[in-house]
Amino acid sequence: MSLLENLQWRHAVKAYDPTKKVSEEDLYSILEAARLAPTSSGLQPFRIISVENQELKEKMVAGALNPEVMRDCSHVLVFAAWDSYTDEKIDKVYDYHTDVRDLPRGRFSSYTDQLKQIYRAQTPEQHFVHTAHQSYISLAMAMAQAAELKIDSTPAEGFSNEVVDEILGLREMGLKSVVLLYLGYRDEERDWLANMKKVRIPMEEFVISK
Amino acid sequence: MSLLENLQWRHAVKAYDPTKKVSEEDLYSILEAARLAPTSSGLQPFRIISVENQELKEKMVAGALNPEVMRDCSHVLVFAAWDSYTDEKIDKVYDYHTDVRDLPRGRFSSYTDQLKQIYRAQTPEQHFVHTAHQSYISLAMAMAQAAELKIDSTPAEGFSNEVVDEILGLREMGLKSVVLLYLGYRDEERDWLANMKKVRIPMEEFVISK
Repeated sequence: MSLLENLQWRHAVKAYDPTKKVSEEDLYSILEAARLAPTSSGLQPFRIISVENQELKEKMVAGALNPEVMRDCSHVLVFAAWDSYTDEKIDKVYDYHTDVRDLPRGRFSSYTDQLKQIYRAQTPEQHFVHTAHQSYISLAMAMAQAAELKIDSTPAEGFSNEVVDEILGLREMGLKSVVLLYLGYRDEERDWLANMKKVRIPMEEFVISK
Repeated sequence: MSLLENLQWRHAVKAYDPTKKVSEEDLYSILEAARLAPTSSGLQPFRIISVENQELKEKMVAGALNPEVMRDCSHVLVFAAWDSYTDEKIDKVYDYHTDVRDLPRGRFSSYTDQLKQIYRAQTPEQHFVHTAHQSYISLAMAMAQAAELKIDSTPAEGFSNEVVDEILGLREMGLKSVVLLYLGYRDEERDWLANMKKVRIPMEEFVISK
């Protein structure tokens, strides 16, 4: 099916069947779409923590708006972004890029010098706004891929960042949680949104053409 | 082709052929993917200004990091997010939702009351961080759809928000520019990235499994 059909098919599932698990193979391809997502300057300034462990999920539930959704889904993907940009992080990514491309290290140094200068002039708070933006592109690709596989997903911002960061030890990794994606299979009977019509504002209101 | 193949195919094109235009039909389906993108509470708190007019593009170029890319592409999609949440905006969206679904207005009022309370406790700056996040999901769906159609795209954050907001009169619409998406067809000879290998960090580094 096409992306447009997949987007029509999907919705933010409100109840999962706790007995149904996403296969390793399907999970891998969802993560692969997330990994292939484009990011600013190719820095991929975030990581995904894929949580299947039920005990961990039970702990992360504290402070979540829809605890039973997190509890019953198959996997929770935690999108966690870099807490800041540093010269070292930028160099590490670009050294990897040149190595993979069989180019001399430093081949892009005029560009990375410019990047470093931009980020040095910003605060870590500004960095995190930017790294979080990139995570949302990746989140979207993961949702699109899940829909292609007819796997349900629910993006979730209503959770306690403090709880999740603490339980997963994100701070020590230089990461901060941004957004979650629940994956699994809907429980048709309990998912009140399943049979409601999808609503989007009309195209003529959504787009202004110039 | 599958989403994964489309994501492997695409890259952030660095030079466009100014003689090639994206058809109305293809543009519509890219905008449709952007419109179908999920957003927090279904509020769709952003709009897209689709700019084809060459004079306008020439004006928006001021302050852009890659002016020739903006100049030569077929269309510039400007993702512009609400500058704030208000009770009125939330009610307007939910009145539309209930009307389309043939439900009584106010059917979701316990939910929208909760939403209003959350946003009332926040500053417009916090609102805009959140509305901008939603725009990035839509941006990603537009890129995925463009790739499905073998249309090139380049997401761009390196532009002057002040210039773009001013030229498009966004402030008067309660909007602020977030990110751009250039659409068009690559100029193979000038696009230095076209023949470089796509690089992403390895899966084992990108994902942490728990």
